[in-house]
Amino acid sequence: MIRNAQFLNTAEAFKPILNRRTVSAQVQKNTLKDGDSLVLDFQEHLVGFVTLSLSFEGSHPDAPAWIELQFAERKQEFSEDVQSYNGWVSKSWIQQERIHVDTFPSIVKLSRRYAFRYLKLTVLGISSKYRLKVEEAQCEAVSSANDADLKPYQTQDRELSTIDRIACRTLHDCMQDVFEDGPKRDRRLWIGDLRLQALANTQTYRRFDLVRRCLYLFAGSTFENGQISAAIFTEPEIEADDTAMFDYSLLFVPTLWDYYEATGDRETLSELWPVAYRQIGLARDAFDASGLVRDSNVLGWCFTDWNLQLNKQTSAQGTYLYCLKAAKQIAETLEDTKLAAQIEADYAQKRDAALRYLFDAKKGVFVSGKDRQVSVASQVWMILGGVSDDAQILFRAKDTDGVIGMVTPYMYHHYVQALIDTGRREDALNTLRAYWGGMANEGADTFWELYNPENPNESPYGGTIVLSYCHAWSCAPAYFLRKYYTE
Amino acid sequence: MIRNAQFLNTAEAFKPILNRRTVSAQVQKNTLKDGDSLVLDFQEHLVGFVTLSLSFEGSHPDAPAWIELQFAERKQEFSEDVQSYNGWVSKSWIQQERIHVDTFPSIVKLSRRYAFRYLKLTVLGISSKYRLKVEEAQCEAVSSANDADLKPYQTQDRELSTIDRIACRTLHDCMQDVFEDGPKRDRRLWIGDLRLQALANTQTYRRFDLVRRCLYLFAGSTFENGQISAAIFTEPEIEADDTAMFDYSLLFVPTLWDYYEATGDRETLSELWPVAYRQIGLARDAFDASGLVRDSNVLGWCFTDWNLQLNKQTSAQGTYLYCLKAAKQIAETLEDTKLAAQIEADYAQKRDAALRYLFDAKKGVFVSGKDRQVSVASQVWMILGGVSDDAQILFRAKDTDGVIGMVTPYMYHHYVQALIDTGRREDALNTLRAYWGGMANEGADTFWELYNPENPNESPYGGTIVLSYCHAWSCAPAYFLRKYYTE
Repeated sequence: MIRNAQFLNTAEAFKPILNRRTVSAQVQKNTLKDGDSLVLDFQEHLVGFVTLSLSFEGSHPDAPAWIELQFAERKQEFSEDVQSYNGWVSKSWIQQERIHVDTFPSIVKLSRRYAFRYLKLTVLGISSKYRLKVEEAQCEAVSSANDADLKPYQTQDRELSTIDRIACRTLHDCMQDVFEDGPKRDRRLWIGDLRLQALANTQTYRRFDLVRRCLYLFAGSTFENGQISAAIFTEPEIEADDTAMFDYSLLFVPTLWDYYEATGDRETLSELWPVAYRQIGLARDAFDASGLVRDSNVLGWCFTDWNLQLNKQTSAQGTYLYCLKAAKQIAETLEDTKLAAQIEADYAQKRDAALRYLFDAKKGVFVSGKDRQVSVASQVWMILGGVSDDAQILFRAKDTDGVIGMVTPYMYHHYVQALIDTGRREDALNTLRAYWGGMANEGADTFWELYNPENPNESPYGGTIVLSYCHAWSCAPAYFLRKYYTE
Repeated sequence: MIRNAQFLNTAEAFKPILNRRTVSAQVQKNTLKDGDSLVLDFQEHLVGFVTLSLSFEGSHPDAPAWIELQFAERKQEFSEDVQSYNGWVSKSWIQQERIHVDTFPSIVKLSRRYAFRYLKLTVLGISSKYRLKVEEAQCEAVSSANDADLKPYQTQDRELSTIDRIACRTLHDCMQDVFEDGPKRDRRLWIGDLRLQALANTQTYRRFDLVRRCLYLFAGSTFENGQISAAIFTEPEIEADDTAMFDYSLLFVPTLWDYYEATGDRETLSELWPVAYRQIGLARDAFDASGLVRDSNVLGWCFTDWNLQLNKQTSAQGTYLYCLKAAKQIAETLEDTKLAAQIEADYAQKRDAALRYLFDAKKGVFVSGKDRQVSVASQVWMILGGVSDDAQILFRAKDTDGVIGMVTPYMYHHYVQALIDTGRREDALNTLRAYWGGMANEGADTFWELYNPENPNESPYGGTIVLSYCHAWSCAPAYFLRKYYTE
């Protein structure tokens, strides 16, 4: 990894001071003996630091109280057996603590930050001479989003109003020192999430300093060859993850362009353009002579969606084209006409290759990989990449036997954008209602990392207990509704 | 409970500043993946605060490390299944924590105090991208005992030297803000333990200010009727336990007398004498007209030993007489000859009653309760109370079918004293060798709360994991060896 001290200093200069707000849970039946438990409801999704005020009833405590604390974004998480979770995401992410309280009364300030609405206390061990009394439970909620900056979304449609509110809260709770992907897990800066957050931010909290900071963080810590990492760790200090993905590195380009479009900050645009353009140069090596991106069996070579069956070749081709469009606009803005022309030529070649080799004329859809797989993702990225402007390829793909569907809200975001880009605003809105509205109907306070309308509790990680139920890449409605569906 | 502010202020004035000493564990194989564990050996029994220095090997940590920490005074404790412990002492006493470490490197300062020699770390959850590395483990050991104040015990006998060393360390590690009973559990001031600690302290560390403090603590927080509680809580503030026992309240009297004998501090003697004498007045109510203490079925009315089958009547009678002897000496010292004469008369009546009603001439031993139970304890207290000076009653009792034997080192202490008081120094020394030497042979670093030479892992609490293996009432050899067996 290489570090660019100047970029990192700029990022540091824009590190936000977090807003803090104290929220108390209602505590009712609050006297607990050995084995008892109590669920506190903070009434809203929070990211913050919890303080418990504990006392006792009965004789002077003659032994510590041993208490388990479990934090949950959804109440359903409490019904899962933590012991038996054995998925591949580390169980260290499960938000649970076991503490001993040695003296009473006691103010217990937990040092870690939690993302949660519910807190369950269970007495694992206590003396029979006294009972634990929970006097008060408070959370100091933190976010770099300013509630006062959020204008109401003007609509008479209560469903859309609800979806917008939940999406804004999702974004709000992910806005910390950086745009985190999920404040429960993984709590860091991913380029895929950042791009969608930045779009939603433009329509909502407009903390462009935070977007700028994140762009400089990615630019400030890269692979030796200049490739942007898929994610940045911010603690204990800034360091790029040793993971890079074809699409994620490229998506730095439109993220930079979107930022410029929203702010007109030419200084940042010109300063980071070499880093951004480097991603295109690196990606170009992945193409063969015919202008097609080479397919790969390497797991995670290109993200696109959380789906191990999905062949990524066509999506990767579309993502490259999508990013070239942004690159061309940047080159033109910075008045590098020669480079703009080169990008244009590159774009034309790669677009032609896509049309020639990836479109199955008989099926009327784009296919991917040597097995000519049909997926929704491939059509979406062919549209976003400007290879097609025909929404029918989306519908035809969906109707294909054995089609590979969508898994993540991240993929659904791009599907909605593809519908809008092909003039299908009504279909796009229906998708927002069906997909994000579906989570709202399940009682979501914030939108989830994963949602399958046909199986709401599905998890690719082997257990829902490690899932993030406030996840940045799910904040799309705050962007789409406010940008395309205002009254 | 009533509080005497003046007494409590005096106690506060003698609150010790603890000595601190840093001890490091040798860390060898120290790189742990999911499920791995590591036992660190600090080479000696410690009471203190632990700091871990943790780092990692591999990729940048992308998930917290979830670590279980188990502290043990004896390595054997690790073989016990914590989950299945269901004894009546709260499992909240088990010294174990589960912590999450979110960033690396990390200095983890644990806030609680532990009593331990061994620390076991187990990785409960970690990402596969990195491994936990234990760089360093330190304990800041605390005690109000000053090592420099301890004179070596002069002997050529290696066994006795070892027993003395372990006993001194036991006392040392129990000497904190007060004379604690056990630094693992219960971590408070019990009168039964205090008396034996004060005796050992006189022969070793000679921190008489700490004894004085403890006497004032007992006197400063009592039951409404003036009865001394069995124990004092010191956190979060001084408060008497709502438990009192016949013998424990009375034993305040000889504890005060022993303190005066060791220090000549007449101020404390005269100031606390009314409180001490009040215990005798209260105990007197428990006697019937014939001068016999009334037996009771109430569990724990009189402690004597940790033995539910033991009938306490005769031991209680002996304890009362033992305490009257000290009371008489105090009255004489304070030149209250009238009171001294009253005590003398009371003593004579109670002693006569014991001889008349409690001695079984046929068996040649003292018996206790309506079932005329034969126990070692009854003989011991008849000797300590001055009713008998014949060691044969001890031996005859031991040889009696169905005799109730001794369970705790506390009871063994009194047995050794009874042997010495009846001129059986050789037998007393053999008992020290057999009983405390037995623990030493089991690898004790400090002497235990409980030890049954015939079943070293026995626990009346339903599991050894809650046992205290550094327990004040087991420090007897430091007293006996240095007082009676110096070369």
